[in-house]
Amino acid sequence: MDISHIEHIGIAVKSIEESLPYYENVLGFKCYSIEEVTDQKVKTAFFKIGQTKIELLESTDPEGTIAKFIEKRGEGVHHVAFSTPSVTTCLSELEAKGVQLIDKAPRKGAEGLNIAFLHPKSTHGVLTEICEDPNKKQ
Amino acid sequence: MDISHIEHIGIAVKSIEESLPYYENVLGFKCYSIEEVTDQKVKTAFFKIGQTKIELLESTDPEGTIAKFIEKRGEGVHHVAFSTPSVTTCLSELEAKGVQLIDKAPRKGAEGLNIAFLHPKSTHGVLTEICEDPNKKQ
Repeated sequence: MDISHIEHIGIAVKSIEESLPYYENVLGFKCYSIEEVTDQKVKTAFFKIGQTKIELLESTDPEGTIAKFIEKRGEGVHHVAFSTPSVTTCLSELEAKGVQLIDKAPRKGAEGLNIAFLHPKSTHGVLTEICEDPNKKQ
Repeated sequence: MDISHIEHIGIAVKSIEESLPYYENVLGFKCYSIEEVTDQKVKTAFFKIGQTKIELLESTDPEGTIAKFIEKRGEGVHHVAFSTPSVTTCLSELEAKGVQLIDKAPRKGAEGLNIAFLHPKSTHGVLTEICEDPNKKQ
């Protein structure tokens, strides 16, 4: 499996506006982008810390995945995303190895990345995303 | 706050032995160290993916923190650790900013790091560790 680094950690928050002071003023990270991903019913905020990003996720819909996650488990780490040069190749390898996929083909995520999620039942409880930046060589 | 990168992501697993095939054979990561941290009642397994490590955490005691975490929430991401040149300096800054600390002074963690945990009540739900490697310049 060709995975180069941890692209980001997705963190579910009730409100980006209310979480920003902690990430910016306490930890000292700089939010470089706030973006809404309509089909995932989320608003996202991004920080870069070394090689890896933190992606805050706020639900834009009370029935959305992130709203349900927070209702059940509270705010916290939602998923871990690995960077790969090809999501399609990764998905084929994962499927051949018996991993249960949430997305059988890549779809568009925040920041224009091609992404796919693996089911936490196959990953020892970690909701796992694989992603590829179509605009960059890895 | 002087944070250079995400040092590791701590993941609670029921059994390192049973999780290793997923991390090694499916994701293709190489476990470079398995270590018991007696005072934290855990066995740990480490992988390096780019700049960041994954630390699998298995409880060595049914009453340990990791055992309790899994009992309540199942396997999954337990904490996120940021690398800093000085945990002591970080803790002073965090305390001055009103962050609730689990450890008021650094203690020894896996791999000989000086570590301290922040309370998830102050960090929007993410159990957060700060750590410094006393043997390396950051």
